Amino acid sequence: MDRSTGLILTAVPGIPLVRTGDDIVALILSALAAQNETLCSGDVLVIAQKIVSKSEGRMVSLKDVEAGERAIELARSTGKDPRLIQLVLTESKEVLRAVDQLIIVVHRLGFVLANAGIDVSNVGPEGSDGQVLLLPENPDRTAQNYRASILSETGANVGVIINDSVGRAWRIGTVSLAIGAAGVKALEDHRGKVDLFGLPLKASEEGVADELASAASLVQGQAGEGLPVVLIRGFKGPSEVQSAATLVRPVQQDLFR
Amino acid sequence: MDRSTGLILTAVPGIPLVRTGDDIVALILSALAAQNETLCSGDVLVIAQKIVSKSEGRMVSLKDVEAGERAIELARSTGKDPRLIQLVLTESKEVLRAVDQLIIVVHRLGFVLANAGIDVSNVGPEGSDGQVLLLPENPDRTAQNYRASILSETGANVGVIINDSVGRAWRIGTVSLAIGAAGVKALEDHRGKVDLFGLPLKASEEGVADELASAASLVQGQAGEGLPVVLIRGFKGPSEVQSAATLVRPVQQDLFR
Repeated sequence: MDRSTGLILTAVPGIPLVRTGDDIVALILSALAAQNETLCSGDVLVIAQKIVSKSEGRMVSLKDVEAGERAIELARSTGKDPRLIQLVLTESKEVLRAVDQLIIVVHRLGFVLANAGIDVSNVGPEGSDGQVLLLPENPDRTAQNYRASILSETGANVGVIINDSVGRAWRIGTVSLAIGAAGVKALEDHRGKVDLFGLPLKASEEGVADELASAASLVQGQAGEGLPVVLIRGFKGPSEVQSAATLVRPVQQDLFR
Repeated sequence: MDRSTGLILTAVPGIPLVRTGDDIVALILSALAAQNETLCSGDVLVIAQKIVSKSEGRMVSLKDVEAGERAIELARSTGKDPRLIQLVLTESKEVLRAVDQLIIVVHRLGFVLANAGIDVSNVGPEGSDGQVLLLPENPDRTAQNYRASILSETGANVGVIINDSVGRAWRIGTVSLAIGAAGVKALEDHRGKVDLFGLPLKASEEGVADELASAASLVQGQAGEGLPVVLIRGFKGPSEVQSAATLVRPVQQDLFR
């Protein structure tokens, strides 16, 4: 099995504050160049959802949002801003739980997320005035675009993951997951492999793209670090193109909705 | 914030097959010495649950297990071996779901796990004859013991995490989590920190011990690699002693049981 025995994760310094329309790949390549660093085939770039969303202009002013009837109702039961709830509903397929200060939904992309992944921190100085940030329109497609653009600019065949910190059902604390991926196999299938004793492995599939996303989060930080991009070297794992959508458990297999 | 901007993960080569009674710390130190490597304060060692369980003699022969009434009943509805189900029940506090080929329980340590985390691969050549491996008796205590023993043997103040691959509610693919931890803050509390714009962070707590466990899994592999120990360098994150039990969401906060 072609597995890495060593990994190096480095936060890329010098990524500026991102605004709508900014070219994320250009920002990354120029930040790397300033470090005399170039991308190599096999490298994996993990990019925080926040800068992707900002570049895509996914910022919304709550003052521009009109809450509908259902949002007003859910705002009452959760104690949240009805306009935020309206955005949550617009971004979602289904509300799973709504309790005090917490609304958990199935995002339109299939992810189960509190607040539909809408972000109110690190959004900008207007944050306090009700600027919020939605998830990227289609993070798998964005990851594919970044990957293609890096290939054409540098010749390097890299993996790209867009990550975001999410809460979990039975564990305290968020961990980062892959909400978009390209050039990295999202799932590694261990079925059919043999164990150390030659017996068939029962353990099924490993969410390697999520594990890469979590690893990157350890150097990205979540507070004021401003280190949204992480370069992972040495991941000799699977490299087939597979999207992060692969990691979403289909409803009919979901026992915990 | 004192966050790492770079991390190096290395699988420690040369860990032999582990048997009951083996001294895991001695095996690790001698494998590191063979690489001319010494542990430094701040290093984090991530150790696969499997070798910890083996050293603790947590192997059970199914032929020595007598299934009770409830196990026989659940074996019928899941299609699993009643003796395995008996062990699952003995290791658990509560059965959450039991469907075809799948039983999900709250492990006595609080973790929500398929099969109570009982392992049937990489257990030994007898695996096919019904040898299975339970989780360690008390992985937090074991991690503390390892950490204390490393400190006394080498003088290095390291973090220790015992990790295991587990399934998730809404995502396909397992990821590795910390089932035991010592010398590493399991949760990093971002509340009260400010974001890039000086606004208070709303994102609450990050499960850093789980993210370290997932990162390590990328180099451990799950099949025949025999690389159960990973050395993580450069994690300048939180270092207060905190147990992995901190990461278990209390029942009263759990909306998805």
